[in-house]
Amino acid sequence: MVRLTAERLVLRVTVGESPKRQSDSLAGEEPLELRVGGRSLAVTMRTPGADFDLAAGFLVSEGVLTRPEELSAMRYCAGATDGLNRYNLLDLTLASGVAPPDDSVARAFFTTSSCGLCGKASIDAVRTRSAFEVRDDPLRVTPDLLASLPERLRSAQKLFEKTGGLHAAALFDGETGELLVLREDVGRHNAVDKVVGWALREGRLPLRGTVLLVSGRASFELVQKAVMAGIPMLCAVSAPSSLAVDLAEEAGMTLVGFLRDPSMVVYAGEERLLAAAAPAGMRTP
Amino acid sequence: MVRLTAERLVLRVTVGESPKRQSDSLAGEEPLELRVGGRSLAVTMRTPGADFDLAAGFLVSEGVLTRPEELSAMRYCAGATDGLNRYNLLDLTLASGVAPPDDSVARAFFTTSSCGLCGKASIDAVRTRSAFEVRDDPLRVTPDLLASLPERLRSAQKLFEKTGGLHAAALFDGETGELLVLREDVGRHNAVDKVVGWALREGRLPLRGTVLLVSGRASFELVQKAVMAGIPMLCAVSAPSSLAVDLAEEAGMTLVGFLRDPSMVVYAGEERLLAAAAPAGMRTP
Repeated sequence: MVRLTAERLVLRVTVGESPKRQSDSLAGEEPLELRVGGRSLAVTMRTPGADFDLAAGFLVSEGVLTRPEELSAMRYCAGATDGLNRYNLLDLTLASGVAPPDDSVARAFFTTSSCGLCGKASIDAVRTRSAFEVRDDPLRVTPDLLASLPERLRSAQKLFEKTGGLHAAALFDGETGELLVLREDVGRHNAVDKVVGWALREGRLPLRGTVLLVSGRASFELVQKAVMAGIPMLCAVSAPSSLAVDLAEEAGMTLVGFLRDPSMVVYAGEERLLAAAAPAGMRTP
Repeated sequence: MVRLTAERLVLRVTVGESPKRQSDSLAGEEPLELRVGGRSLAVTMRTPGADFDLAAGFLVSEGVLTRPEELSAMRYCAGATDGLNRYNLLDLTLASGVAPPDDSVARAFFTTSSCGLCGKASIDAVRTRSAFEVRDDPLRVTPDLLASLPERLRSAQKLFEKTGGLHAAALFDGETGELLVLREDVGRHNAVDKVVGWALREGRLPLRGTVLLVSGRASFELVQKAVMAGIPMLCAVSAPSSLAVDLAEEAGMTLVGFLRDPSMVVYAGEERLLAAAAPAGMRTP
């Protein structure tokens, strides 16, 4: 019942070469809801595995627990009818006398009152909430243009080389490759929020025809933010998670990972890459 | 008023060489509280700069805004007496008719009801909440031992090479260098929670005499988690943020960044590194 990794068919694209269909391992990502005494405390996106440790450690970090006997029971959601999803809800019981965490601890995300919280429910929540549709965005880009973006980002970055500690998010015009805006932050979600907020304030939402490039990995949360802003293509210098790929597919967004000139891996929405058709006979149905 | 980077005196240690005192640029990190209509919505740790974009983008991601006219005003906390810290609280006013975010959006952290939320207040909150003291931990390690840890982590990692998408956190015995536990996750804070939760359940808290190694960067949140678990030394393969260094110093924790055999950079608590005394005449007071 541990979904540490997920296997996917992807398309590896290298400038000047024929694209190759291959299998790729993705880091598993699923929501986990923590309940203390029946009350929902937090929902976090995590890689399944060591969930009891994760829950206990979260409560230590929040100052609720310091000794093992203060946590009297942990169990997965007992009422789930779905064998898989019951492992995404943990019921915790504190020993009597242990003060439960106060409201300021709650880390809300897409909470649900039912057992069986799952990636699919999280994806549906994003799709329901988004005012914009990216599936019909006619953006098409060449591998050459995409391969040139990381260098454009780096040359525009004022801080990364200096501190080595900042995530960057950059928005490009998908047709010309022009850099529209670059924002940096210690938190990757903040860097993306800064880009999207710039676009809102400039009256540019939805961001049709644009490409968003992030300096690190692509998590579910980053794809979510791109969907909410109507961005049809998200590229990351590192790997995406399994749920990031699922959401991109569901939303009709193109998701590219390991974008490092001259190559890249296309995880979803490959129709937007010109001249990147899969080898004959190997296309997914 | 933009604190994108902070300069610090650090100690660069290379195995077999004399340590060098040098200046280093750190990525700025400060809490930002967002209020909508006077109500606290979220506190996020961010790099100061483009705060209006960050706030607007956060509300787009949460499905509150899609058009610029829906946000009628943004201003920094008007009542702050401290010229610096007033820039850590943003008051947002939505246009009439725009539904405010519901409670499920709130991302609570160390909230405060006063103007002037600052890094110092966040640090004090951690110190007040922690049941354990790390300042008096007598742990001493050699640069050789520290330099060997990343390779020990990598050889124990089952997943990273495969997916390229997981953060790792590993706990070592500071005397022998023995790997006590390794946990992986798409979220770095989750990986650390899993390590700390393991320790709680094993009855090992506080984690005196141990070294925690994380595969990425060291943020305020990771140092906080280490403090709460009584870990006296945190090492990161990449850079720490400014507030991470501040908290480590305040807590008496040793913080090492850019740990890549054979060298490392010591940001706080250098007294725990044997044979890593600073060059004569260059010690900080």
